[in-house]
Amino acid sequence: MTTGRRPGRRPGSADTRGEILAAARRVFAEKGFDKATVRGIAREARVDPALVHHYFATKENMFAAAMQLPLTPDVVVPTVLDGPREQIGERLVRLILTVTATPETREPMIALIRSAMTHEQAAGIFREFLSNALLLRVSQTLDVPHLRIEAAFAQMFGVLMARYVLRLEPMASADPEELVELLAPTIQRYFTG
Amino acid sequence: MTTGRRPGRRPGSADTRGEILAAARRVFAEKGFDKATVRGIAREARVDPALVHHYFATKENMFAAAMQLPLTPDVVVPTVLDGPREQIGERLVRLILTVTATPETREPMIALIRSAMTHEQAAGIFREFLSNALLLRVSQTLDVPHLRIEAAFAQMFGVLMARYVLRLEPMASADPEELVELLAPTIQRYFTG
Repeated sequence: MTTGRRPGRRPGSADTRGEILAAARRVFAEKGFDKATVRGIAREARVDPALVHHYFATKENMFAAAMQLPLTPDVVVPTVLDGPREQIGERLVRLILTVTATPETREPMIALIRSAMTHEQAAGIFREFLSNALLLRVSQTLDVPHLRIEAAFAQMFGVLMARYVLRLEPMASADPEELVELLAPTIQRYFTG
Repeated sequence: MTTGRRPGRRPGSADTRGEILAAARRVFAEKGFDKATVRGIAREARVDPALVHHYFATKENMFAAAMQLPLTPDVVVPTVLDGPREQIGERLVRLILTVTATPETREPMIALIRSAMTHEQAAGIFREFLSNALLLRVSQTLDVPHLRIEAAFAQMFGVLMARYVLRLEPMASADPEELVELLAPTIQRYFTG
């Protein structure tokens, strides 16, 4: 959940949010995810750190917004937690297929993956975000071993690559609900099996 | 299984095999996998088609040799077939982790995947090889729906990317046998579940 669509009571020009995100992209590119700080991004954007906190509650959210990533910890974790534990697989597969269904939400994520596949620096940033923000947080919140969360990640990463980048048929044209049925038991087993 | 290490009774200089592979790379790059023919590659290499057949029994083998791919249909299919059907998952996961364990066998495959992720033409060639040679053949040989074979491919593709390209920990350093235990039931379910 990103804030900042309606800045409300705090100061900030119409472009302040955009300027913070541009500064965030520069700082993440230079420092990586782990070493970047909200304070450093505020300094780069020449705004008060409190304003950065106002727009983006966490560094993870700021990274996701800067990279236009649709799958942030704040989206994934509640989806995983909200509902019966024995349907985690189904909820997670459906969420991932839904948020990647439109090119607008999918393309920035695929662009980041492409960079991570071909540039070591981008791979480092993506690795830190994935490991330390997204997957580790899911692992800790649900008390599931990190390796099992990575196996689930690998399954869905492979599906998105096969479906949208390699465009392998029949997967590329498969009905989302058919994929949910096929993949949910795999994800469920990693989480609770 | 590639032949050609010991050319034996047929003619051919020490470099003939290498010249055929160089010609194959040019023809695959120009025509794609499906439209390339053994005859066309022989013409490009200025050798008799029978000599090409002698070195490489099939177009699939020639592609795998030209791209230095360790996982060819002639390696994967017998591994899948040779042994109890209820241990297909275990055999296949162990095979894939074993052949990708050394950088020498892994790097050419990862280079091809990188190209496929960033260049549409390379993606087309990789797609045709995967779909029409490797995955479809496994699907038909075992009478398992193509989509299920692609789900298994997606799982292992994601694992190799997480382990060797993104280098996510703990997966990057995980013991192969721990990964076999974790992943084999997933692959088994896609094949026989």
